[in-house]
Amino acid sequence: MAEDEGITVKKSENFSEWYIQAIIKSEFFDYGDISGTTIFRPEGYFIWERIHDYVDSLFKEAGVTNTYFPLLIPKKFLEKEKEHIEGFSPEVAWVTKAGQSKLEEELAIRPTSETIMYPAFSRWIRSWRDLPYRYNQWNNVIRWEFKHPTPLLRNREFLWNEGHSVFADEESANLEKDQILGIYEKTITDLLCLKGIKGQKTESEKFAGGLASFSFEFLLPDGKTVQGPDFHHDGTNFAKAFDITFLNREGEKTYVYQNTYAISTRMIGVLLAVHGDDKGLVVPPGLSRYEVVIVPIFNEKTKGEVLEYAFKIRDELRVKFRVYLDDRVEYTPGWKYNHWELKGIPVRIEIGAREVKSSKLTYVRRDTMEKGTLNATDVGNEIGNIIEMINANLLKRSTEFLYSHIKKTNEITQIRDIIAQGNIVQVHWCGSSACEDKIKEVSGGKSTNIPFDSSAGPDSICINCGNKAKFVVNFGRSY
Amino acid sequence: MAEDEGITVKKSENFSEWYIQAIIKSEFFDYGDISGTTIFRPEGYFIWERIHDYVDSLFKEAGVTNTYFPLLIPKKFLEKEKEHIEGFSPEVAWVTKAGQSKLEEELAIRPTSETIMYPAFSRWIRSWRDLPYRYNQWNNVIRWEFKHPTPLLRNREFLWNEGHSVFADEESANLEKDQILGIYEKTITDLLCLKGIKGQKTESEKFAGGLASFSFEFLLPDGKTVQGPDFHHDGTNFAKAFDITFLNREGEKTYVYQNTYAISTRMIGVLLAVHGDDKGLVVPPGLSRYEVVIVPIFNEKTKGEVLEYAFKIRDELRVKFRVYLDDRVEYTPGWKYNHWELKGIPVRIEIGAREVKSSKLTYVRRDTMEKGTLNATDVGNEIGNIIEMINANLLKRSTEFLYSHIKKTNEITQIRDIIAQGNIVQVHWCGSSACEDKIKEVSGGKSTNIPFDSSAGPDSICINCGNKAKFVVNFGRSY
Repeated sequence: MAEDEGITVKKSENFSEWYIQAIIKSEFFDYGDISGTTIFRPEGYFIWERIHDYVDSLFKEAGVTNTYFPLLIPKKFLEKEKEHIEGFSPEVAWVTKAGQSKLEEELAIRPTSETIMYPAFSRWIRSWRDLPYRYNQWNNVIRWEFKHPTPLLRNREFLWNEGHSVFADEESANLEKDQILGIYEKTITDLLCLKGIKGQKTESEKFAGGLASFSFEFLLPDGKTVQGPDFHHDGTNFAKAFDITFLNREGEKTYVYQNTYAISTRMIGVLLAVHGDDKGLVVPPGLSRYEVVIVPIFNEKTKGEVLEYAFKIRDELRVKFRVYLDDRVEYTPGWKYNHWELKGIPVRIEIGAREVKSSKLTYVRRDTMEKGTLNATDVGNEIGNIIEMINANLLKRSTEFLYSHIKKTNEITQIRDIIAQGNIVQVHWCGSSACEDKIKEVSGGKSTNIPFDSSAGPDSICINCGNKAKFVVNFGRSY
Repeated sequence: MAEDEGITVKKSENFSEWYIQAIIKSEFFDYGDISGTTIFRPEGYFIWERIHDYVDSLFKEAGVTNTYFPLLIPKKFLEKEKEHIEGFSPEVAWVTKAGQSKLEEELAIRPTSETIMYPAFSRWIRSWRDLPYRYNQWNNVIRWEFKHPTPLLRNREFLWNEGHSVFADEESANLEKDQILGIYEKTITDLLCLKGIKGQKTESEKFAGGLASFSFEFLLPDGKTVQGPDFHHDGTNFAKAFDITFLNREGEKTYVYQNTYAISTRMIGVLLAVHGDDKGLVVPPGLSRYEVVIVPIFNEKTKGEVLEYAFKIRDELRVKFRVYLDDRVEYTPGWKYNHWELKGIPVRIEIGAREVKSSKLTYVRRDTMEKGTLNATDVGNEIGNIIEMINANLLKRSTEFLYSHIKKTNEITQIRDIIAQGNIVQVHWCGSSACEDKIKEVSGGKSTNIPFDSSAGPDSICINCGNKAKFVVNFGRSY
């Protein structure tokens, strides 16, 4: 499809149409045949492989080990934790038949794996010697949402990590939070080149079955918020529902403390939505199948010298970078520029007879479309510097975009307009769910989180009831 | 459970009970709550991660890229290729409900992904410029078998790679076979330390919907055969069913040629079954979470010097190896020996006051249980050599086991007994399915494959009909 046409709408004028065209015409993704499912084509899946590898190696350094539990969950297990089943049952895909036979018990495709893992934890854990468990799995889950689906951002099937930890005491469980949120933050910042708002979810927005939830929240160009990676303290809730106990050093039967955490393929949608422009995707260098594409420009007469020089540059660069020399003769240089711009390749190098003669290269940065020349003598370091500048610029742009759209107000009457204009609104709040419900109703959105980097001053008052404010909390329209 | 007891049966006396005890008491795997599903605990899943990483990097070197297609397949797609649906439909798990709503169309959980991938291939592929596709995905599939399940070996859910290639012509499609079978063979030999029989499946045993299938076949200690990694030429079968065509260089509409290939978690069952012994698992070094475990032996007086020395050795070894110093005080050295033997750790190092004094180490090889001493001065290389010897010995043992159980005969009356005694039987065959059916009936098993390394001599005759033999073919009882 890339051959046929570029993107036909402006990102600023019609974000949702731009988003679909950008991810599909780039050939990174496609609609699955069932509504709400998405096909990950090679360059799209490459992004997830890079996120997987990066996060997985940080998890392993931190002492987390991977496991795999079955896809299907017996209905009776899913029903064991009351809030959990209430939260998930409307979205569960049910297997009721195998071959021609009706199953005796309906089986849920995991929407998340607590209820298939914890019966096993209950069998396995006997003594304080067995703890902690710091387990994780990378898998696919299904949540059959009935809202309007959007590829990656609101998908019925998605890929994720789900971390499941078991500790002997609350203190150890609490310590894990900063470590895991730190891993996610490093990934978001260094690899995805994104800025998110780190904070705690309110009671009404926390994980179904958990005690306290923490999240990174993102803002998309259309002014909608998206929840990114999250972390949940489950306390002893699931331990009690699934009877997960151990004998402590004193020989007493004790309930375990649990945490869970996740990052999903939804983040691919977020980063592509935030970084892209009217020409198509802008992929951060660490996530791009190629960091550099070389386009040679030649005629019959210059072909030999141009290609020789281009191959030499390619060979030098590929020691350090993922690089592709696009020497296909069936396409023109201009077609190739459009092609690789649509796919968001960070750096394009153009090599023609002029570059050969001067021992220089022409390059174009995808993030800014700035063009420059550089010496061929130190091309590895030069390109390395450019890539670092791209990383820094993408992070800077996404940070500025986010912070310029967080608007504070003390007037409840302004909330709706601020959000409708594509912002996150930040207000003071007493912490009561009655007030949250009221603000939610007025806002037309919902609370995203209580940001860690803001706190209610001693004299601040709740925007709804006027009582002393406990928190600063953000509201937005969400995906 | 490892604390409670070791394995209570001998492998040679009761293989199936031994197998279950070995993989469960080692805490590598456990039964899932739904019959036919298996839980991969950390050390068990580690084996799959290593196989995944090894195969995946060889695939990437060969030019294969990863993708992800949805889990659920609309019924109408699954039905498009007649032989394919006949082969798979008895084993399909069907999703019929989401939340409280009955779905309009039943959705299959993928038993394999041809029928969800190829409609997309049909949309995407337009021109010879788009080919080849060399796509792969690592995922989970469900085949709801009604035979008696065995963890890993006959599982209703398993993990695998599924490679799906699309070529413009038959010759290119044919060339891929040796490359992919070579990757699997290298993995089986170098990483799994196993020997398999490489060959072609007969017409009646080939992949449902394919033209020709190739496989590695393995023999388990109980005399049953298991099919390992396979490769299928699909020709234009699926191209015709799914209308996958392209315009060739002459502008003519042409059907594509396709291949598929897979290696699954079943291989973990095979390697653990073949290598293990009465003490428990024997894990090949490349697949073991720890290659070396150090057990310090000390009393109150020697504790300081022994641990200091043990930590020094640990730090030296961990530059090259995955090593664990088991300095837990709540367990005795004897308990630790049993514990790590059950888990099949390739090398145990024992360090006591005597070792400290002599600047030596005592080691025990898990594959042979041979004990020896080595100098602490060059411990990295010494252990490296021992690990190489373990790899070579495991491969040698599994090769000898396999070849000593391949029995040739020209007497059809002997086939049943040979197989019943735990062997693969190798016979000459004319190639007709009537004769294959007859041999199958007599044998009590079925054909495994037509080995590449044997061929029918010019004067050889079919064991059933007495006509000229075209092939040498193996029969066995299979899982």
